[in-house]
Amino acid sequence: MAEGIFHSFASDNYAPAHPEVLAALASVNTGHQVAYGADTTTARLSELIKKEFGSQAEVFPVFNGTGANVSALQAMMNSWEAVICSSAAHINNDEGGAPEKVAGIKLWIIPTEDGKLTPELVETQAFGFGDVHRAQPAVVSITQSTEYGTVYTVEEVKRLADYVHSKGMKLHMDGARIANAAASLGVSLRAFTTDAGVDALSFGGTKNGAIGAEAVVALNPSALPGIGFVRKSAMQLASKMRFISVQLCALLENDLWHRNASHANAMAQRLRHGIESIAGVSVARATDANAVFAILPAAVTVELQKKFKFYVWNHVTGEARLMCSWDTKESDVDDFLDTLRELMNG
Amino acid sequence: MAEGIFHSFASDNYAPAHPEVLAALASVNTGHQVAYGADTTTARLSELIKKEFGSQAEVFPVFNGTGANVSALQAMMNSWEAVICSSAAHINNDEGGAPEKVAGIKLWIIPTEDGKLTPELVETQAFGFGDVHRAQPAVVSITQSTEYGTVYTVEEVKRLADYVHSKGMKLHMDGARIANAAASLGVSLRAFTTDAGVDALSFGGTKNGAIGAEAVVALNPSALPGIGFVRKSAMQLASKMRFISVQLCALLENDLWHRNASHANAMAQRLRHGIESIAGVSVARATDANAVFAILPAAVTVELQKKFKFYVWNHVTGEARLMCSWDTKESDVDDFLDTLRELMNG
Amino acid sequence: MAEGIFHSFASDNYAPAHPEVLAALASVNTGHQVAYGADTTTARLSELIKKEFGSQAEVFPVFNGTGANVSALQAMMNSWEAVICSSAAHINNDEGGAPEKVAGIKLWIIPTEDGKLTPELVETQAFGFGDVHRAQPAVVSITQSTEYGTVYTVEEVKRLADYVHSKGMKLHMDGARIANAAASLGVSLRAFTTDAGVDALSFGGTKNGAIGAEAVVALNPSALPGIGFVRKSAMQLASKMRFISVQLCALLENDLWHRNASHANAMAQRLRHGIESIAGVSVARATDANAVFAILPAAVTVELQKKFKFYVWNHVTGEARLMCSWDTKESDVDDFLDTLRELMNG
Amino acid sequence: MAEGIFHSFASDNYAPAHPEVLAALASVNTGHQVAYGADTTTARLSELIKKEFGSQAEVFPVFNGTGANVSALQAMMNSWEAVICSSAAHINNDEGGAPEKVAGIKLWIIPTEDGKLTPELVETQAFGFGDVHRAQPAVVSITQSTEYGTVYTVEEVKRLADYVHSKGMKLHMDGARIANAAASLGVSLRAFTTDAGVDALSFGGTKNGAIGAEAVVALNPSALPGIGFVRKSAMQLASKMRFISVQLCALLENDLWHRNASHANAMAQRLRHGIESIAGVSVARATDANAVFAILPAAVTVELQKKFKFYVWNHVTGEARLMCSWDTKESDVDDFLDTLRELMNG
Repeated sequence: MAEGIFHSFASDNYAPAHPEVLAALASVNTGHQVAYGADTTTARLSELIKKEFGSQAEVFPVFNGTGANVSALQAMMNSWEAVICSSAAHINNDEGGAPEKVAGIKLWIIPTEDGKLTPELVETQAFGFGDVHRAQPAVVSITQSTEYGTVYTVEEVKRLADYVHSKGMKLHMDGARIANAAASLGVSLRAFTTDAGVDALSFGGTKNGAIGAEAVVALNPSALPGIGFVRKSAMQLASKMRFISVQLCALLENDLWHRNASHANAMAQRLRHGIESIAGVSVARATDANAVFAILPAAVTVELQKKFKFYVWNHVTGEARLMCSWDTKESDVDDFLDTLRELMNG
Repeated sequence: MAEGIFHSFASDNYAPAHPEVLAALASVNTGHQVAYGADTTTARLSELIKKEFGSQAEVFPVFNGTGANVSALQAMMNSWEAVICSSAAHINNDEGGAPEKVAGIKLWIIPTEDGKLTPELVETQAFGFGDVHRAQPAVVSITQSTEYGTVYTVEEVKRLADYVHSKGMKLHMDGARIANAAASLGVSLRAFTTDAGVDALSFGGTKNGAIGAEAVVALNPSALPGIGFVRKSAMQLASKMRFISVQLCALLENDLWHRNASHANAMAQRLRHGIESIAGVSVARATDANAVFAILPAAVTVELQKKFKFYVWNHVTGEARLMCSWDTKESDVDDFLDTLRELMNG
Repeated sequence: MAEGIFHSFASDNYAPAHPEVLAALASVNTGHQVAYGADTTTARLSELIKKEFGSQAEVFPVFNGTGANVSALQAMMNSWEAVICSSAAHINNDEGGAPEKVAGIKLWIIPTEDGKLTPELVETQAFGFGDVHRAQPAVVSITQSTEYGTVYTVEEVKRLADYVHSKGMKLHMDGARIANAAASLGVSLRAFTTDAGVDALSFGGTKNGAIGAEAVVALNPSALPGIGFVRKSAMQLASKMRFISVQLCALLENDLWHRNASHANAMAQRLRHGIESIAGVSVARATDANAVFAILPAAVTVELQKKFKFYVWNHVTGEARLMCSWDTKESDVDDFLDTLRELMNG
Repeated sequence: MAEGIFHSFASDNYAPAHPEVLAALASVNTGHQVAYGADTTTARLSELIKKEFGSQAEVFPVFNGTGANVSALQAMMNSWEAVICSSAAHINNDEGGAPEKVAGIKLWIIPTEDGKLTPELVETQAFGFGDVHRAQPAVVSITQSTEYGTVYTVEEVKRLADYVHSKGMKLHMDGARIANAAASLGVSLRAFTTDAGVDALSFGGTKNGAIGAEAVVALNPSALPGIGFVRKSAMQLASKMRFISVQLCALLENDLWHRNASHANAMAQRLRHGIESIAGVSVARATDANAVFAILPAAVTVELQKKFKFYVWNHVTGEARLMCSWDTKESDVDDFLDTLRELMNG
């Protein structure tokens, strides 16, 4: 496997950017623009976001997903409050403690089977309101699609949002892979966000084909009035913002976000079906979006990883995560399946 | 003035990226790469940085200057320590309180005339070692070139580094405009950094012609051993890092950094000399790098700003900051000077 | 029930101070003393602590248990690190998020049956060393006696300490009720702390009969070298420290700590045995120290609480916590049991 | 000089507690009380505070002055905001960076001659509202009496409060020595606090004769609605709170606060007049409260400090701070003056 240039199932972060994104970058590389967001490209993005999420929506481009999540959450809460999330949440496991370290956020963690929270699950931590000894639950954060490749239905989000609001809390969605969720559900982006009662969204572009572009989208701007200030103090305010914004524009215009996500999802389905047809291996979870979780024999994993990069999610069970991206080819999938089949038959 | 596409003296952040940077981005947009820095482009950057700053130097690409400064400083100190800086410092004035809010950094602030610290100035705050009531001075942070467009000489940095180290402290350099400083001094980047005793550097690419690329450079890696972790928890770790790294590669290869900085500096000299030739206005400070500070009559400023964007730095004195960038044209300068001359004569 | 003056099983924090503590306060109320710890009483405390915990031990008096825990933990770790603890831990549930908010501490939480961690349990979170995405496990914090009234044996602490150290981590003990644990085990305070490998201890005096006095005890001072600074920046440094220190002196001299704890433990045993003799109610957990957890019918709890203050720990199961303190009288216990018996028979 | 028991001019923190405070502690050491503030003594304190500061005032007892200041400030601001204070402020110099480290507070620092802020001085930092690059000025914090022993007049506070409020900011008063200020002004405590427009007060008891008792007083509770939560997460919530509250009760009842403060102030006047009568030494500042700042020859200071403890405030000018406390005797002052006179004549 040549270092540096290869195809993999390790992460949609391993993929390059879509050519339309590169072209978009070049298209705005002309003349001076006001820095820090008062540029014409960010204004264009603002319009696209309003079109997608409703006229009340406000967009705050940031650098990365951790930055989007922590900025949004910090802006949604007071200094003494807390966030309820799944034990599988990216904000819990994968952000180097940024929520706690950057913003002093207490996380109330709920174990989940499939990465999805329900009102019943949230209720196990949504208590103690008014008790100063308990960091006050103020925000519930969910991930769509989840870290386990599952997708909340529109109805599931609505039910959760209703519950969350009934408790006086707010709902945040980590949408690092929101495009894959929308493509999977076959609905608009707003159907399970604005229209379902989500207050703030971390909108992901990087995994969807950008070189690096995310945004906090204030779906209910009154839920995070200080986000403009927080984005700056959280070190997520780009000076030459046009180059972040234009990537998101490129994804939103001409349905590139949907094309990329649908393709990744389809490759995941192809991969899943292939794995299901191979004796001795099994698929561990629902494949709602672009991730397939498969149980592989340890020895087979070792051999497979000589040819394909991917991560083992659980070393005890042998569960591996196989992530498809916008640029995964059918031949990549088939090549992987052929190799796996050979190894299992060997 | 057409919104969005114009030339200005407002900031080197208003400028677009250099075409070679755009070309570099496209050049690495091929195939999969390991995310978060284990890619071949970042490895190439690592070599370029070692060539420039010495084989001990380690590079940690980040998103923006605030991120570079705060990550570097946090990694250089314990939780109970403090940073000494000039009252003009970007970390004091322009980062939305990020040092305090993200990293709990206490700043001991020293008023300066020209933005430059000296051992004598630092000494006014370098006391109380061992006294638990005083947040312990642990790092001195300087800016090169400074927020006032001045440049520390090699000797000045050396003298300061010696003093700082003699007190058991460490020296950090905010090099958002380090290229302009090096070009101004006519020396290598390492002459006034590694060789002068600087421990850690915020290396700036964005103002020098990138779309958005900065880095913490650990010149003395033992001074900030946790920087790899801090970069992540400070939300400055890019997933598709190749696209940050390649911008810095483009600047370092083929001397693009020097070409861009020299040009900006030359435009600033042209601007300064022009202003000096106009009766009734004056230049307020040394023009060591790419910024000219001029005292303009308030009414003239109002008229000038109808045609050219720039910032008034001091509304009492009428001091304006005129910043040149890699793409400032001689005709931009001359146009500005012509307009100013007319206004003064009108 | 007269407001304000009553006996209760709500908390050992509801109890007054032991008369010997009051007398001790008066005994040092003479003349001037250097503030912030350089007083003769704190020097005396230092000697007492060394006698109890070994000559290497250093004591840092603080105001309260949360302050002791967070100061100790912050001093034991770098800014990017994390603490592993039980889901029942006071630092997780009862400190208003202080670890996260004051010190940016990420907690890796482990569900436990009885509040006690084991090497096997810790191992479920002690992974990812060197992975920047995972806040680095650096300290394991246990509570002795636990929030569930259980007590680690000497051997259990030793085994845990060995495991923790083998992973390069440090061991912290929240000893808000350390006296009850020692009295229960029938061993010295150092047997399960210094001698078992604990690196830092939050030493509790308040629940043991003080008006308000706790301390960080650095059993292995090299594990928290900055504690002197952290205590100040964490707002836990008393100016007239003699009045904190002398309370701890009073507890350590003349075995007051042991007398108070033994009595509270004995009252808990009396209470437990009484409850076990009443049909229809049951004791839910081991009664190692001064807390009894009993399952009571909801209607009975309502009636009982009209006469006795205590807290329901789990509203689903009806589990109530009944805490005995140094001043609980046999007649208080018997009165409670009589009332409970009547209610159950009624 | 016997270690441990001596009289000094080092700090009012070196003094013991007033006997009435000790007696008050003993008076509440009876029976159980609800912990964490729902006790009858704290209810009594609440009434006393309302009587003193107006019926709207709410009291939140805390452990120490740093805790009071940082809790109050944090509760008065959003996470992205900043506090304006004098360069002489305790929150800037003497709290180990707690405002920054515990609460992420950015301090905008203003040099002052005498420790007092004016609208004109505040205006130098009260700008940039709405600019995300500038941590937003939200609170102005003043100290009464100041760290330099000066006292704001009622009119000065009113004028400042009006200015602060006109800018949409809030006014905090660090009243660690508020009693000395009130006694000096000859007015009630509310005259220069509630009635002058102060929003929140750190009310000091420790220096005024307590063993350790301070409080946040919300004079305008709507200015810090979350203070109850912040006090807990800032680790300033006492479990056996009655023992903090009763000290403040003792100071407020029977005018003990005023007797103690008046005495300390009178001793400072006696000391000042004595020093003024000695040739070769001089008094450096106004003596509004209980601190005298005197310029002494270095050699004389060395000799004096062999007999009396006090601090040199400025080693360059030889300025020493001589602090009187509630227990300073006329003979202490006279003894000091006699020794000084002899040394000057020797």
